[in-house]
Amino acid sequence: MSFIATPEFLHFPQALPLQSGASIRDYTLAYETYGSLNAERSNAVLVCHALNASHHVAGVYAGQDKSEGWWDNMIGPGKPVDTNRFFVIGINNLGSCFGSTGPMHTNPDTGQVYGADFPVVTVEDWVNAQARLLDRLGVQQLAAVLGGSLGGMQALSWTLQYPDRVRHAVVVASAPNLNAENIAFNEVARRAIVTDPDFHGGHFYQHGVVPKRGLRIARMIGHITYLSDDVMNAKFGRQLREGLNLKYSTQDIEFQIESYLRYQGDKFSEYFDANTYLLITRALDYFDPARAFGGDLSQALARATAQFLLVSFSTDWRFSPQRSREIVKALLDNRRDVSYAEIDAPHGHDAFLLDDARYMGLISAYFDRIAKEFA
Amino acid sequence: MSFIATPEFLHFPQALPLQSGASIRDYTLAYETYGSLNAERSNAVLVCHALNASHHVAGVYAGQDKSEGWWDNMIGPGKPVDTNRFFVIGINNLGSCFGSTGPMHTNPDTGQVYGADFPVVTVEDWVNAQARLLDRLGVQQLAAVLGGSLGGMQALSWTLQYPDRVRHAVVVASAPNLNAENIAFNEVARRAIVTDPDFHGGHFYQHGVVPKRGLRIARMIGHITYLSDDVMNAKFGRQLREGLNLKYSTQDIEFQIESYLRYQGDKFSEYFDANTYLLITRALDYFDPARAFGGDLSQALARATAQFLLVSFSTDWRFSPQRSREIVKALLDNRRDVSYAEIDAPHGHDAFLLDDARYMGLISAYFDRIAKEFA
Repeated sequence: MSFIATPEFLHFPQALPLQSGASIRDYTLAYETYGSLNAERSNAVLVCHALNASHHVAGVYAGQDKSEGWWDNMIGPGKPVDTNRFFVIGINNLGSCFGSTGPMHTNPDTGQVYGADFPVVTVEDWVNAQARLLDRLGVQQLAAVLGGSLGGMQALSWTLQYPDRVRHAVVVASAPNLNAENIAFNEVARRAIVTDPDFHGGHFYQHGVVPKRGLRIARMIGHITYLSDDVMNAKFGRQLREGLNLKYSTQDIEFQIESYLRYQGDKFSEYFDANTYLLITRALDYFDPARAFGGDLSQALARATAQFLLVSFSTDWRFSPQRSREIVKALLDNRRDVSYAEIDAPHGHDAFLLDDARYMGLISAYFDRIAKEFA
Repeated sequence: MSFIATPEFLHFPQALPLQSGASIRDYTLAYETYGSLNAERSNAVLVCHALNASHHVAGVYAGQDKSEGWWDNMIGPGKPVDTNRFFVIGINNLGSCFGSTGPMHTNPDTGQVYGADFPVVTVEDWVNAQARLLDRLGVQQLAAVLGGSLGGMQALSWTLQYPDRVRHAVVVASAPNLNAENIAFNEVARRAIVTDPDFHGGHFYQHGVVPKRGLRIARMIGHITYLSDDVMNAKFGRQLREGLNLKYSTQDIEFQIESYLRYQGDKFSEYFDANTYLLITRALDYFDPARAFGGDLSQALARATAQFLLVSFSTDWRFSPQRSREIVKALLDNRRDVSYAEIDAPHGHDAFLLDDARYMGLISAYFDRIAKEFA
């Protein structure tokens, strides 16, 4: 049983200019904080979330036993990111569907639900929104910004957009941009959602339906890319779901892996917003700090002054260790202080969320080091 | 310009018992032959096809310039499988949608279109149907059976079901069974088709519609798995489709890879049968000769007496070289005559269909060796 977490909300009346040229006003961000900001305001840690997560990073909600935050194994009292020492902040990103303003909310300019008209947001936009929220919390400089996968992209972007406001960046299982295969998987998932007749051009809320077929397919594809070949073979292999005999059916579930994927798809389609899925996968596609530098990542990262810890996982084929090493190389080209660990773990991309003694020990040791700077 | 190929058809009134326990009667197989059967009837080569291909292996149809067979680079006069020396046979498998009896045909038992009621067919069933066709052509023993991917599974199965009828088996870019990840991708594709409202439980023909949304998604997923990461990055990378500026849209095409995948999906949905897609992916899932031997592939392959050539491609992550090596090991455990080549090619699984000098040279040399046996 973890500690009790309480979501909070801040409203921002002032318009936030977005990278696309559009802007958004009258938005609300949901967030949580754990631990206490010290007198010097020097122990704040921002945790950035990936596609499917939220501001509920750690702890449980009162009266809800099984409501652990998505990184509860990593963050909390006595945990690798120790909330007895750090003031940890989780923020639900704009456009998400867990409390911050998103496609299911009303556009103040039209009085209509945004739906597909919610403006496209980028990693850079999220970071700007997070910075405004930190202003309101009185946090001028972060001891660290920490994130995995898409969260790692936000951590990296923090060091480029607000170099003076970040002392350490911990970038786990991430990449300097998506490659063609990553974009391809996102695009198939988006097409599954957009071509679902229940999507209604992104305005399905008015029709009282949800494009669940598309969301299920999107999630099933996602799950395949989160797991390694090895762990899939170990967990499911060619096991049949029932008994020893084949059913010889094209539509019934025959193998355990089919059952697992259908379950994950069904569950996801019950709670995730289809427009949010489109927005967040697009933010992933667009992230590419080297783009403005003709593809030269070393030049792009020259602005970063933070100290870095990069972590990758050997069997992660979504954001392979090679992608983390590109970031490491670009930082070293700029003579930055960077540590890098490639954890030999069987779980694929999902490993960044799981318990692994070496991984936990590594993050723990790194945050010990950070804590010594202000202790 | 290649030679002229002419499809032929044979009707089989006698029921074919299927592995599922069902049977099928009054079926027709479409096939093509190239070259001439020699007097000793010793130069026949059967070419087995994969998911999306057919009996039209090589040559072009009269008056249709761009109608080259799917392995026209490999098979024909003077090509690696030289039709001046070999009598090459291509057969469209039962349940496919290119001329042989399949789901869009009428079930003689009910007078209704089969649709989703077409019986589930397996690799073993296809091989039995192929063997019957060879009987009718007067071919008792094959000089070689040759196939890539699912076609390679059929070649392997020939050596187990009819060991006396195969002298050589050439198994390219294949596997002794699907792993969990392979089944997972098949299952997502099937769910996309089956949950398309236009699928109508597999009886969409009566409704005058085609589940194109599902077929498009299935094909897009397939294409991602056919290509290597490397070749995707080299061909598409993060190239934008139009100009240099981002559109900031979740639904418009932004990257070239998106355009490529959508095009492939659209094209496929125009000609491929949805029920056939389900049947053929299921045949892939079910293939597992080791299953009856408690998973022991060496025991399973003890029956095979043919000589083998196995070929894999370094960047094929669908059926990786490791999977071919499992077959090689199992054959060596039985002291069989087996050659194995791992071709260092960038194209992923698709490499088995493409020109590569070493690959073509290897197949050419192997078939030269076979030809010497009857020359």
